[in-house]
Amino acid sequence: MKAARMHEYGQPLVLEDVPVPDIKPDEILVQVKACGMCRSDVQLVDGYFRKYADIPTPITLGHEITGVVHAIGNIVPEAAGFREGDHVVVAPGWGDGICRHCQIGNTHICPNVRWPGFGPVGGFAEFLPVPARYLIKVDKRLPFETLAPLTDAGLTPYRGIKKLRDSGAMGPDRVVGVFGIGGLGGYAVQYAKILGGGARVVALARNPEKLAIAKEYGADYIVDIKGKTSADISKELAQLTGQKDLDAMIDCAGAPEMVQLAMSLLSISGHYVDVGLVGDRIDIPLFPRVSREQTLHGSFWGNNIDLMEVMALAAEDKIRHTVTTFSFDQLNDYINRLRVGEIVGRAVMKW
Amino acid sequence: MKAARMHEYGQPLVLEDVPVPDIKPDEILVQVKACGMCRSDVQLVDGYFRKYADIPTPITLGHEITGVVHAIGNIVPEAAGFREGDHVVVAPGWGDGICRHCQIGNTHICPNVRWPGFGPVGGFAEFLPVPARYLIKVDKRLPFETLAPLTDAGLTPYRGIKKLRDSGAMGPDRVVGVFGIGGLGGYAVQYAKILGGGARVVALARNPEKLAIAKEYGADYIVDIKGKTSADISKELAQLTGQKDLDAMIDCAGAPEMVQLAMSLLSISGHYVDVGLVGDRIDIPLFPRVSREQTLHGSFWGNNIDLMEVMALAAEDKIRHTVTTFSFDQLNDYINRLRVGEIVGRAVMKW
Amino acid sequence: MKAARMHEYGQPLVLEDVPVPDIKPDEILVQVKACGMCRSDVQLVDGYFRKYADIPTPITLGHEITGVVHAIGNIVPEAAGFREGDHVVVAPGWGDGICRHCQIGNTHICPNVRWPGFGPVGGFAEFLPVPARYLIKVDKRLPFETLAPLTDAGLTPYRGIKKLRDSGAMGPDRVVGVFGIGGLGGYAVQYAKILGGGARVVALARNPEKLAIAKEYGADYIVDIKGKTSADISKELAQLTGQKDLDAMIDCAGAPEMVQLAMSLLSISGHYVDVGLVGDRIDIPLFPRVSREQTLHGSFWGNNIDLMEVMALAAEDKIRHTVTTFSFDQLNDYINRLRVGEIVGRAVMKW
Amino acid sequence: MKAARMHEYGQPLVLEDVPVPDIKPDEILVQVKACGMCRSDVQLVDGYFRKYADIPTPITLGHEITGVVHAIGNIVPEAAGFREGDHVVVAPGWGDGICRHCQIGNTHICPNVRWPGFGPVGGFAEFLPVPARYLIKVDKRLPFETLAPLTDAGLTPYRGIKKLRDSGAMGPDRVVGVFGIGGLGGYAVQYAKILGGGARVVALARNPEKLAIAKEYGADYIVDIKGKTSADISKELAQLTGQKDLDAMIDCAGAPEMVQLAMSLLSISGHYVDVGLVGDRIDIPLFPRVSREQTLHGSFWGNNIDLMEVMALAAEDKIRHTVTTFSFDQLNDYINRLRVGEIVGRAVMKW
Repeated sequence: MKAARMHEYGQPLVLEDVPVPDIKPDEILVQVKACGMCRSDVQLVDGYFRKYADIPTPITLGHEITGVVHAIGNIVPEAAGFREGDHVVVAPGWGDGICRHCQIGNTHICPNVRWPGFGPVGGFAEFLPVPARYLIKVDKRLPFETLAPLTDAGLTPYRGIKKLRDSGAMGPDRVVGVFGIGGLGGYAVQYAKILGGGARVVALARNPEKLAIAKEYGADYIVDIKGKTSADISKELAQLTGQKDLDAMIDCAGAPEMVQLAMSLLSISGHYVDVGLVGDRIDIPLFPRVSREQTLHGSFWGNNIDLMEVMALAAEDKIRHTVTTFSFDQLNDYINRLRVGEIVGRAVMKW
Repeated sequence: MKAARMHEYGQPLVLEDVPVPDIKPDEILVQVKACGMCRSDVQLVDGYFRKYADIPTPITLGHEITGVVHAIGNIVPEAAGFREGDHVVVAPGWGDGICRHCQIGNTHICPNVRWPGFGPVGGFAEFLPVPARYLIKVDKRLPFETLAPLTDAGLTPYRGIKKLRDSGAMGPDRVVGVFGIGGLGGYAVQYAKILGGGARVVALARNPEKLAIAKEYGADYIVDIKGKTSADISKELAQLTGQKDLDAMIDCAGAPEMVQLAMSLLSISGHYVDVGLVGDRIDIPLFPRVSREQTLHGSFWGNNIDLMEVMALAAEDKIRHTVTTFSFDQLNDYINRLRVGEIVGRAVMKW
Repeated sequence: MKAARMHEYGQPLVLEDVPVPDIKPDEILVQVKACGMCRSDVQLVDGYFRKYADIPTPITLGHEITGVVHAIGNIVPEAAGFREGDHVVVAPGWGDGICRHCQIGNTHICPNVRWPGFGPVGGFAEFLPVPARYLIKVDKRLPFETLAPLTDAGLTPYRGIKKLRDSGAMGPDRVVGVFGIGGLGGYAVQYAKILGGGARVVALARNPEKLAIAKEYGADYIVDIKGKTSADISKELAQLTGQKDLDAMIDCAGAPEMVQLAMSLLSISGHYVDVGLVGDRIDIPLFPRVSREQTLHGSFWGNNIDLMEVMALAAEDKIRHTVTTFSFDQLNDYINRLRVGEIVGRAVMKW
Repeated sequence: MKAARMHEYGQPLVLEDVPVPDIKPDEILVQVKACGMCRSDVQLVDGYFRKYADIPTPITLGHEITGVVHAIGNIVPEAAGFREGDHVVVAPGWGDGICRHCQIGNTHICPNVRWPGFGPVGGFAEFLPVPARYLIKVDKRLPFETLAPLTDAGLTPYRGIKKLRDSGAMGPDRVVGVFGIGGLGGYAVQYAKILGGGARVVALARNPEKLAIAKEYGADYIVDIKGKTSADISKELAQLTGQKDLDAMIDCAGAPEMVQLAMSLLSISGHYVDVGLVGDRIDIPLFPRVSREQTLHGSFWGNNIDLMEVMALAAEDKIRHTVTTFSFDQLNDYINRLRVGEIVGRAVMKW
């Protein structure tokens, strides 16, 4: 089968022929139909993660995976109800099933986690073995190219927004900020409206085209932050919303200056959740965090339950997408485009 | 001034002239503009509450109160920003300010609570003294007849639905049931949509006219329960929603058979909240509560924060109303109509 | 091997020879070393559960199981670290691994749950096949006869008390009540002290001998409720604790009159959790639940995480036991003793 | 009366005679009996807070205040039950009573908050007017010199530890770290044991004398971090506790390098709460926060409810103290001693 693999950090992926992988008795072989491309693919190639985990090459990239059931391992439980030809999405973060995190379903933060797309198997290939419990069946009428990004770009901010909701930071009379409207932010705006319980939503970014999408997806207000100070933005917020700071916020960028900007706009007892990894530094004053009793949450990707909930929204057509499709042969080209910020919404490889 | 007072339990209210009340230094004299009529007014007259609190007569009824600021006590803090002529709603449940419940804002469950409409002062009168901290200023463009019911009929289910939200019982992939579509249920449906985080909402009642309102107010499904068994309804739910039980539910009736029906339809780990007081008995099997790990919440009226949030929704025109207005002279007539269930939505006395 | 099986409801168990069961690839064969006897064993024989689940006979009873690893299925993951001879306890409630409840670790409330001791396999036998993920390794120095009851009598109140803690109902300045000091209550008192965050603990029961154990296990106060009215007990509480009602309570009995008594003593915004199943009816007034904003929680047995936490406490010698051991041949005798309430603490069969 | 006031930043306090302050109708005049000295007193003098709030001089310092009721304003509610001669502690953080934070009792983070000791009135004086709702009556048998520090040094870590408890970060099988054993850390260790629900507690600091106090106050383990790397400490933790990182932690220091050290030792899904303000910078890597889903909480002082709970613990003699008393005339001397880190435990001025 065809697969796109990284043989060396910093080099283009090699599009090559490799054997179709075997499955273990509790796995299912998935024929990939579409696989989204993520900023973290670029970061993986560029070595961002090496200081935390130096994954041995070759690596098959691609972790936003959807496809059809091709073969079923012989101890996959009947109760799971899988049949060949079923449409599925792949939940990321395959845990050891034993640790405290796995026990409560947070397999994605298991210390022994395996990630498709960050090791031998990935979605930029024709086939992929997946432990059955990490597959979720989906309605066949849903297009593969919109399903793919829902496993990361459309999953990660969902989990982040849930953390804001579960912290009690949203509701009527509250204003939620979404910082950064790239692949994830467009989804974040929608989830902030759905889970916000009546909160008003502000999108903040430096790209008017991306802000226009946020507006179209339901943001009550948009703020172009380019060239503006925190004080400028605070004033603009006051004019738009009636309050000069934000009660809850999700940072889909994570660049150091975005973290600083966001924190400077956070209300007393406000909650900030970061899902973005553009940078790798939090460098902010301590005193306001303490005296204003603010909370910073890290939120990472999502688990099976999160993905099931996202799929429930998708099945009710409650999620809108900005997706560009491309072919397997264009993979390296699209990695370059993503690196320089040319992609609006999400780029998805489709077989 | 005119006031409608109950001099004897079980008797009609006496519409009479009484002196305009004085205010204490921390109170505001409110000129009543509208006051909603509540099932609990009927229950008060009929003696429902006597075994729990035998309030001495005469009682000025009326607790869904809105009006304008008429006079301001001399130590009302300047920071509160009240001016004569301000439009206000009256938060119910005036606490002692000292107990553990008051300390966290739950003045409405203070053991020393005072309720307007359940003692000397109430809203079926021209004037009313209110401690300043229990008044919330509102936009002058909002009509008094829709503001009044928001202080109870539109507040009580808000608090109940918040309890469901804060219990994690709602969200995508969940189905919420609203039992009973009287004065409160029409609001409950709307709040379930706003706070439900993507949950689908089913209204269940025995009156087609009331169910039609629920549908109009956003219920995804309606179920006429008249003459149906729990098993019938369960089957109907499965057809409508894909699941035969309900993950979360609010009971706006509270009749013994409604409690039983609701509990029989509650899912594993489901949450039930009661705000209805039509009956006064919970009589249900124990084992399913335990083996299915269900939670039953009592929820009572609301506090200042709840009312502020409801007002924020009202100010954004996110709440719809079914209101009939009547005059002071018609009070006893409307009490009778409400007693026999003739009122659809909420009846509001307007000066 | 020997096994004690119920062939007919209402009849004594048949102590007979049956084949040693096979294991599936993901299972472990456990050689039972000890198995506690539970009131629910009596209830199973007496048909209490039949209206909810009519389990086909023969049933091998016994669900408080500890033993040693005898044989390991060939796909049990190496990461789990099991070796023959390891001491283990058996987590109850084996789920399908697919449903929403299993996904977050609540396998014990899975709609497709299997219970050892309530079907073909159980702990009143020499061997038992257990899915590997439901076994927890324990320190070999811990005696089997105290480990056994920790899988139910010592697990169920742990989960219940956790629900009280997670509801915010315990802490300094709060008083927690433990109703019923049978097999579970002695543990409940200890957990209320450990998890109570400084709360004072009152044990309430009608048996002075059992109350003495509660006192020995750390109860700050004991109240003999025999022949006393709710008002009597309220007065006694006021004298002992300075407050006449209880902020949080766990009911380890669940008899209808105990539920009524407990609810009558519950404070404003108090939390009640039931783990007892002596009766099968909740029959209480509705109004105080609502006006006092009380919450009723059903809590059932426990999950893997709960059992891991109980085992952590056991490993630190933080749990005390009242255990009587008996032999396999005495099983029917001990069922009779338990039925009439003769057992103080827990009776455990030891091979 | 005598009062110690700062007339100029960076200068010694002036011990002078000033008029006894008047009280408003809702205030109580407190005769100060003892007042603790806090690192924030030093920071106030040294100008740490000026960039956040440039408080006009003269400032009467001293915010850990206890004393007796001297005079009662004429609208202080009878229900509050104050009598002349009552012993009281002063809750800090007097809010406007109107904002969202005040409405739920978090008066200490009100945007219009007033702090005794950070403005015209403070505890390093003979008398002080206090709004009645910020006074808590205490048992006369409790010594003033131990009550005083409970209003800040013994309150601030209480609130911080509560945040850890309410986040679910503590319990059996968890290890909690207390970083920094100065005025606050000795209390933090005790609260971690009381509220930790069975968690084991590690104290980490660079001063053996202070670590010895932590051990005496119940820390299960102590780690002298002086001259050790994060990796060294991680290894030491593994030896002591069986795990190389910490599930929950409170930072009572807040120095930049302490924040970095703490974060490097935080477990997956761990919770960190900062109450220390030695430094004013958080400068840490972003990626581990996200990929390990960690949460950072700022926690500030405490509110009335927190103080009531601390007082409940004190009344049951559950809190131990390390207190040095000094006289009014020694104030400037003790500020100097505190600045250079000479004080072990808490220094308290006693009249």
